[in-house]
Amino acid sequence: MDFLSDFWTLFVGKLQSPTLGFLIGGMVVAAVHSRLTIPDSIYKFIVFMLLLKVGLSGGIAIRNANLLEMLLPAVFAVVTGIAIVFIGRYTLAKLPNVKTVDAIATGGLFGAVSGSTLAAGLTLLESEGIQYEPWAAALYPFMDIPALVTAIVLASLYLSKQKQRRAAEEQLSKQPVTAGGYPSEQDIQDIQGIQDIVASGYPEPDTKVERVKIWPIIQESLQGSALSALLLGLALGIFARPESVYESFFNPLFRGLLSILMLVMGMEATARLGELRKVGQWYALYAFFAPLLHGLIAFGLGTIAHFTTGFSYGGVVILAVIACSSSDISGPPTLRAGIPSANPSAYIGSSTAVGTPVALALGIPLFIGMAQAIMGN
Amino acid sequence: MDFLSDFWTLFVGKLQSPTLGFLIGGMVVAAVHSRLTIPDSIYKFIVFMLLLKVGLSGGIAIRNANLLEMLLPAVFAVVTGIAIVFIGRYTLAKLPNVKTVDAIATGGLFGAVSGSTLAAGLTLLESEGIQYEPWAAALYPFMDIPALVTAIVLASLYLSKQKQRRAAEEQLSKQPVTAGGYPSEQDIQDIQGIQDIVASGYPEPDTKVERVKIWPIIQESLQGSALSALLLGLALGIFARPESVYESFFNPLFRGLLSILMLVMGMEATARLGELRKVGQWYALYAFFAPLLHGLIAFGLGTIAHFTTGFSYGGVVILAVIACSSSDISGPPTLRAGIPSANPSAYIGSSTAVGTPVALALGIPLFIGMAQAIMGN
Amino acid sequence: MDFLSDFWTLFVGKLQSPTLGFLIGGMVVAAVHSRLTIPDSIYKFIVFMLLLKVGLSGGIAIRNANLLEMLLPAVFAVVTGIAIVFIGRYTLAKLPNVKTVDAIATGGLFGAVSGSTLAAGLTLLESEGIQYEPWAAALYPFMDIPALVTAIVLASLYLSKQKQRRAAEEQLSKQPVTAGGYPSEQDIQDIQGIQDIVASGYPEPDTKVERVKIWPIIQESLQGSALSALLLGLALGIFARPESVYESFFNPLFRGLLSILMLVMGMEATARLGELRKVGQWYALYAFFAPLLHGLIAFGLGTIAHFTTGFSYGGVVILAVIACSSSDISGPPTLRAGIPSANPSAYIGSSTAVGTPVALALGIPLFIGMAQAIMGN
Repeated sequence: MDFLSDFWTLFVGKLQSPTLGFLIGGMVVAAVHSRLTIPDSIYKFIVFMLLLKVGLSGGIAIRNANLLEMLLPAVFAVVTGIAIVFIGRYTLAKLPNVKTVDAIATGGLFGAVSGSTLAAGLTLLESEGIQYEPWAAALYPFMDIPALVTAIVLASLYLSKQKQRRAAEEQLSKQPVTAGGYPSEQDIQDIQGIQDIVASGYPEPDTKVERVKIWPIIQESLQGSALSALLLGLALGIFARPESVYESFFNPLFRGLLSILMLVMGMEATARLGELRKVGQWYALYAFFAPLLHGLIAFGLGTIAHFTTGFSYGGVVILAVIACSSSDISGPPTLRAGIPSANPSAYIGSSTAVGTPVALALGIPLFIGMAQAIMGN
Repeated sequence: MDFLSDFWTLFVGKLQSPTLGFLIGGMVVAAVHSRLTIPDSIYKFIVFMLLLKVGLSGGIAIRNANLLEMLLPAVFAVVTGIAIVFIGRYTLAKLPNVKTVDAIATGGLFGAVSGSTLAAGLTLLESEGIQYEPWAAALYPFMDIPALVTAIVLASLYLSKQKQRRAAEEQLSKQPVTAGGYPSEQDIQDIQGIQDIVASGYPEPDTKVERVKIWPIIQESLQGSALSALLLGLALGIFARPESVYESFFNPLFRGLLSILMLVMGMEATARLGELRKVGQWYALYAFFAPLLHGLIAFGLGTIAHFTTGFSYGGVVILAVIACSSSDISGPPTLRAGIPSANPSAYIGSSTAVGTPVALALGIPLFIGMAQAIMGN
Repeated sequence: MDFLSDFWTLFVGKLQSPTLGFLIGGMVVAAVHSRLTIPDSIYKFIVFMLLLKVGLSGGIAIRNANLLEMLLPAVFAVVTGIAIVFIGRYTLAKLPNVKTVDAIATGGLFGAVSGSTLAAGLTLLESEGIQYEPWAAALYPFMDIPALVTAIVLASLYLSKQKQRRAAEEQLSKQPVTAGGYPSEQDIQDIQGIQDIVASGYPEPDTKVERVKIWPIIQESLQGSALSALLLGLALGIFARPESVYESFFNPLFRGLLSILMLVMGMEATARLGELRKVGQWYALYAFFAPLLHGLIAFGLGTIAHFTTGFSYGGVVILAVIACSSSDISGPPTLRAGIPSANPSAYIGSSTAVGTPVALALGIPLFIGMAQAIMGN
């Protein structure tokens, strides 16, 4: 019962957070047909500012970290971040009526890291007197940024396959099929091969074709304004000593600009809420169980690091909390700009309304309890 | 003599305030034919930021107030705010050559509240040792926002009547009246009735027709970007706990963004200064007497609250000071966006150059003196 | 060796400064063909904000200064600022393959003042125990703003001459030459007069024609958005008491907005780096010797002020340091907006990579040593 009331308090508290408040405010504004708009150039600049800040803070954290000592945990953080997106891609996206891009974006958001959840975890660790490496919190960009990059690349891949499939289907329906070259049902669903099939009747093997096509799409994703800004910030954070301008400009403006972004996303979300009516329960299901699963994977990998390089169990808990958290900070602007076709109501709703309360009320206590049980406290 | 020198000092001080300085700066920039411009999207966003902040601060003040205890004074604040606009509409607007929209906007600005005048009033009350309810200052949004909404709605009503009248006149002059050309049912329902008057001599009563048309125009006004942003801020302030983002973002940026808005308004004002040449004395007359009249109305209503619910005389003075003040903060951006056809030189000039000095040098001492005389000090 | 290692440390430190970091970041972004862009309206507004801030801080410094006492040094500061630009115009611009507008812009940047170089000079003066007038640092806007204005006007003059020359040449090649109206060699080189020559055969003398044309171009330059914003800020700083809004808004946002401007300028610079390949050594040469020359001129003028009005030798050093420094703050946005055709890589590169380290490592010690030698320490 305590858990349920805690959960409820957190849930209501989250609903009153400025982030969600501005999202709902934007939805109401759109619902009452207000003529209020944020000019497009402002919107684009706000997204740029947010992404640059996310990148900068990640880069600064990495520069100040002891890279050699944190190598294995950092690699595990990257692995976990990428894995989380693939898990979303192959669980949530397979549920009935769930749109694939929405699922990928949601996976990206759950792979990205929430600074406030991390802060809550650190506070609890300290109050429990559990030791951890001072650089452990700096693991977050190693999970955050790979997860977002993976989500954007996966979505680009998916969408470009969709496009090719549609183009191929159109071509098929137009072109007369030559004798001895009937493409099977399965072949038609095979995206990459389809044009070769039609032309020559000799389908190329899937894998080779995909390998040919993946790199341009990854490159294209990285050249997009979202990932460019993120990676630019990361590079500046690592190489340019931007602390003064970060502390005086990008960081103080962040929360405010985010609230305006939320407003814009809320305005856009209204029109797309209907899409979620049939699938809301699947998002709730995913958002309840996924954070715990992600945390357990990270806990397992962290334990490997414990036995191989002496990574402390406090650090393991931090890695698990980072995996368990879902971003309400770096995620929304990145995904909005990087996967514009994904429905923001889906991923923000899942994270803010279910994922984050679960991480705070269930995840953190679970991982601390596990660590204490293992350490024999 | 003391009063005159005080008034003069305040007057000169006001002329050196950044707000008026940027306004005059913008006028000079336009007068020397500079090519300096503020991009339109930036301008729109600045207005949005300012209005959201005005709404947020009002909403936060309302949420933190004891609504039950302050119910009657709050109702009186709303009544006074609306009354002030109507007073402007039926006094200033009736003076020779004064444009009606300019007069309505000026009424709205004098109905809105100046935070700095309020602060001066609170300071003087405390130095005189007069007690007041701690929530009394939170009465200001109850006068500020209704006054601005009323002004925008009144202006919309007036302008849409003007438009219909003009359309009707054009129609009359074009259409040949057919034999037996009795005005149809539909024509009679036309608001102004002007056609009917001209054509048939049987005017419909104004009031009935107006009632038919008022609601769409109010709805239209509320859906406009100015009032939408204001009411969105108000709602977020009441429901969403936006204090953190308000304190870190909207409030610190406010004065600076306002100064840029003033610059833009100054650039626009130059071209329209000529309009005021013939009517400047009427604005000065209004701006000198109206604040005192508004304050006395509020003082009278506050006294009713004193005798019915025990509202303190300190609170009565605060209500009067709120009514006496004219906004140089919430007013200009709201009116600029909500009544774009009104001449900013008219309303800002009246308020900054005459209204506010009168409120500070005459209004506050008058109301405190009245309260002390009544309380028998 | 000490000098070389100091120089190298400063050089590397400068390369890691956020200003240059963002510039290089922008260049990399453009080089990898990212689709990241800053909307044009945002860019224009950022430039406006930066220029207004530069003007405001200059104006505030002038208002708070003792103008009568500092009259002669201020006049010398103005003279030095203007002279520096002309020196650039008639040395750097004459070097082979150096574009004239790039040279003028570079001269303007070296005439403008670096706040951080000035601060370094003041610190060293104090650690050496050399007295100086408290208002001496307020001399900087008297050199900074005239230098930038001169550069923009010189560039406008040059470009409009170029344009006329081209128009005249085109006209000449089209129009049949009338008998008795052969344009002489000298006439062809006379830009302004050429149309009159063709039309009437009576060339106007060079000087008079130029005098006729200079003022409209100066007026045109002053009406441009860059100088308008700068002079508006200056006027507001002197007359409007904008300290509150300066401290709370324009100053805190300055570094951050500058970093974004640098990013944009970096993006633009990539395409134009090639232009510098053939002339880079001339810029390096200029950027190494010009600061020392400028400082010595100012030191000489300051010494005149010392003997005529008792200007202290500490003050003379400050004047020399101001002249020696090249702006990485006020200069780039002003020149970018005022001389858009100049190549930012040229002037920013010269200043940041060579000029500023030279000023810090060579200039300041040199002038302090000279002052100490003269004062007999």
